Amino acid sequence: MDYKILTSGRLSSDFKLFIKNYYPDIEIVEAKKDDEIESLLPEVNTIAGFNFLKDQDVSKIKWIHAFGAGVDSYLKLKTLNPDVIITRTTGDLGKQMGEFCLTYILAEVKKIFPIYDNQRKTTWQQIPASSLSDLNVLILGTGSIGMGVAQQLNDQVNKVIGLNRSGSPVDPFHETCSWETLSKIQDVHVVISALPSTPGTAAILDESFFQLFNDIIFINVGRGDAVDENVLLKVINLGQVKKAILDVFPEEPLPKDSKLWNSEKVLVSPHQSGLTTIDDVSKSFELAFKAIKNGGRNSLFVDLEKGY
Amino acid sequence: MDYKILTSGRLSSDFKLFIKNYYPDIEIVEAKKDDEIESLLPEVNTIAGFNFLKDQDVSKIKWIHAFGAGVDSYLKLKTLNPDVIITRTTGDLGKQMGEFCLTYILAEVKKIFPIYDNQRKTTWQQIPASSLSDLNVLILGTGSIGMGVAQQLNDQVNKVIGLNRSGSPVDPFHETCSWETLSKIQDVHVVISALPSTPGTAAILDESFFQLFNDIIFINVGRGDAVDENVLLKVINLGQVKKAILDVFPEEPLPKDSKLWNSEKVLVSPHQSGLTTIDDVSKSFELAFKAIKNGGRNSLFVDLEKGY
Repeated sequence: MDYKILTSGRLSSDFKLFIKNYYPDIEIVEAKKDDEIESLLPEVNTIAGFNFLKDQDVSKIKWIHAFGAGVDSYLKLKTLNPDVIITRTTGDLGKQMGEFCLTYILAEVKKIFPIYDNQRKTTWQQIPASSLSDLNVLILGTGSIGMGVAQQLNDQVNKVIGLNRSGSPVDPFHETCSWETLSKIQDVHVVISALPSTPGTAAILDESFFQLFNDIIFINVGRGDAVDENVLLKVINLGQVKKAILDVFPEEPLPKDSKLWNSEKVLVSPHQSGLTTIDDVSKSFELAFKAIKNGGRNSLFVDLEKGY
Repeated sequence: MDYKILTSGRLSSDFKLFIKNYYPDIEIVEAKKDDEIESLLPEVNTIAGFNFLKDQDVSKIKWIHAFGAGVDSYLKLKTLNPDVIITRTTGDLGKQMGEFCLTYILAEVKKIFPIYDNQRKTTWQQIPASSLSDLNVLILGTGSIGMGVAQQLNDQVNKVIGLNRSGSPVDPFHETCSWETLSKIQDVHVVISALPSTPGTAAILDESFFQLFNDIIFINVGRGDAVDENVLLKVINLGQVKKAILDVFPEEPLPKDSKLWNSEKVLVSPHQSGLTTIDDVSKSFELAFKAIKNGGRNSLFVDLEKGY
């Protein structure tokens, strides 16, 4: 099959250059404005980018190469061809997100925000800090993102526990559990959601989930719709969550009227725990393209039924 | 020799309890107020604590067990007996200070203060972050503190270089240099001072030192008098230092009129990168006491000539 790619949005110019240099046989067009998307879409069979499509007809699209790890917005397209191939870019997102989690866990245990605030008030006051090495961390999701985060935290904390659907062991987690066996896990200090957005994970972190914990740091680097804003504020109020570090939200940018902005126990990060680079995109494109040509699959291929 | 200990200040009550429980043969008195120090001092031959002495006569004191790692203020006592034994507490200070350094380096590369400020302004704006793994870190001092910091950073950054007087290799530094060979070290991104305060290190980090670097993160967890405030502000202004993370100052608490409080490129931490615990103090006391009884020495013993 001959591919004709439409690309748009962040990294699209770099990606076009990459294709022209390394895959001169592949046709690629770049849309810089919305109306160009409309006019160019009917001429192509492949999409490459962070999702720039809305409700256009995409039934002729054979391959979508997502520049990010999350593909939920592509999967929601109504006219998606059932045989479409969707591949994604993970790159070193797991490593980046691991550094993000490590950063904010350290920020909490070392009390750097109160110290920063005190400086502005010219206040010299020691604030007892604690250590990473006593913490038990639960990571929801043991895929490439969850594994990357675990890798980063592994040597720093006491224990890293992974949660996946089957509860089967995965390296480098010290321990794993499933949703069914989760309640047996004791003494969790940090919960990190690396869950993708699928119909099965929407609002999955509900009040009964947070009831299993007390005084935890909750970090969301997965998808924002895994937890409802009001549930979060409620469990913070109940003391089940002492600090929520949120990099993802059901609606992004986070609406100005969200109560999360003003909560002292919430840190709003503008979806930047893992920012894909052109290197990530081109490497994953190469791996995906090679697999497609050979009629194979690899871990970059999205299972349309599972949704990730 | 029979020891009679005077203790005062932070951790003194816990230390008194420890001595009473584990060394019932040793006499210990605790001063809770300044005038009690005056009246109790003539009756003892041993001091235990963070330095609570000023200009009293200490010529009869045979042993000083410092609760911290820095002993410079003890060494400045004018009537110090030349045969006095001074021992100190390092405990896991190196590990704590390593976590402190890791925390603030991550805070810088992940831009968490601008993100925190943006939240207060309800501003959603991605700020490009970078990674730890490309950084080269120079640690001034390869003693227990410097080694602890190196241990923490070793697997996280590209390279950890240690500086000591002889330039001889020390584990776990990837590389070492001396003051004489320092100028040959290239591409340093972070400089951490773990220097003790001695006559030889006062103001040692002068303008010519900072001229060797460009756009570095400078962290001081050693002693404040290694660098003059005005030098620091000047090299920040010149762009040689892009951010200074200071946990120690020539005068503590940092005076209200110091210009460091208001510089956006300075983070003022109230001397808390390593806070000694009673466990640290009692462990180091036990090791020091055992060595003294056996007529030996160990790494907790301060060399009065070197000053650390």
